[in-house]
Amino acid sequence: MASKKVVEVFYDVVSPYSWLGFEIMCRYRNVWNIELKLRPAFLGGVMQGSGNKPPGVIPNKFQYMGKDLARLSEYFDVPLQTPADPFEVMFNKGSLNAMRFVTAVQEREKLGDNQVERVSRELWRRIWKEDKDITEPSSLSEAAMKAGLSDGEIKEVLELSSSKEIKDKLKSATKNALDHGAFGFPLLVCHVNGKPEVFFGSDRFELMAHCIGEKWLGPQPDKSASKL
Amino acid sequence: MASKKVVEVFYDVVSPYSWLGFEIMCRYRNVWNIELKLRPAFLGGVMQGSGNKPPGVIPNKFQYMGKDLARLSEYFDVPLQTPADPFEVMFNKGSLNAMRFVTAVQEREKLGDNQVERVSRELWRRIWKEDKDITEPSSLSEAAMKAGLSDGEIKEVLELSSSKEIKDKLKSATKNALDHGAFGFPLLVCHVNGKPEVFFGSDRFELMAHCIGEKWLGPQPDKSASKL
Repeated sequence: MASKKVVEVFYDVVSPYSWLGFEIMCRYRNVWNIELKLRPAFLGGVMQGSGNKPPGVIPNKFQYMGKDLARLSEYFDVPLQTPADPFEVMFNKGSLNAMRFVTAVQEREKLGDNQVERVSRELWRRIWKEDKDITEPSSLSEAAMKAGLSDGEIKEVLELSSSKEIKDKLKSATKNALDHGAFGFPLLVCHVNGKPEVFFGSDRFELMAHCIGEKWLGPQPDKSASKL
Repeated sequence: MASKKVVEVFYDVVSPYSWLGFEIMCRYRNVWNIELKLRPAFLGGVMQGSGNKPPGVIPNKFQYMGKDLARLSEYFDVPLQTPADPFEVMFNKGSLNAMRFVTAVQEREKLGDNQVERVSRELWRRIWKEDKDITEPSSLSEAAMKAGLSDGEIKEVLELSSSKEIKDKLKSATKNALDHGAFGFPLLVCHVNGKPEVFFGSDRFELMAHCIGEKWLGPQPDKSASKL
């Protein structure tokens, strides 16, 4: 059996397309012969570092994005809903605290990435489904609680979140994404024969599968597999 | 048998992603139960009208685009190659004359769209494979000759290209795309139950197929169909 190909997924919970990409990769981690590495990073840093502007500044693009997300949400079966004021949520409130929190969850979790997966998902659910805050400690705690962390664990993670170690770890992941050429998220980095193959967005899975020698079975591979 | 769904593809030969989208739709016109309408339009007008900026202005995005196009070209089997100076080709030289020429070919062609399809493809081949000019009348004539038009036809098309009628027709197609919310090309407009469903880019075919009740068989449906 060939050794597993490593696929890194760089994401930020402020980004709805990241949510789509994240869920697809979580579904395919057991379908494809890959080792998935979750790489929480800071989208604000990537936009600044690459000089990119968010799509929302062009009215037609912004409108299209809403429609596109609604269609993809249904087709991918990810319960995504645009918040009432996406500009406020994405650009004013932002996700720095949230991504430090996720980074701290990952740092604490020695084996596997069960907690970091679930906490990330709960944060996305807050911002991109329930239109709730993700900047306050109480919001982060609530998401972590829903993800199954104990009160003691949440206290530890919150403390760890503001440490230099975690700030530096998030910076380093963000820099890593920029070094791979990021100008937005999600960024999927597939390590194929020692070479990184980089894919941006949540619309290159079929091409990605082709590049890593796997088969794209649609956004719900388990359902599709059970039909085969 | 259900009536054919109309799918309009708005494109400009200056846009490489339009070439990919155009070829895919030309392949699927005989696979899906659709009536394909080729809508040559002017990308410069869409960018100006929507206030959008080309992706090339962000270095990381520009680099990614080169890699993305190379991978898609291979996977889609469209012989696309980035010209030596894409900025010069896309933004300085542009495609206004070329798209007026294509519009004139379409205007002259009373039945079907065989000529407009072939002329468009030859223009893409010039700019996006052979790194040749598409602004001079001699360049346009050469492309049309390769597409099978006679000397007489080419002469007529060239004359027609600079008429007010054709200039207005191209403007009107461009405005039509903007009215559908365009901020770039290709723009695919599927008319489903009297409602337009708009898709941007050449990476939403699977989603589009789902929306119009058809099946996505990958970028080479004929090969894929013959394997079934």
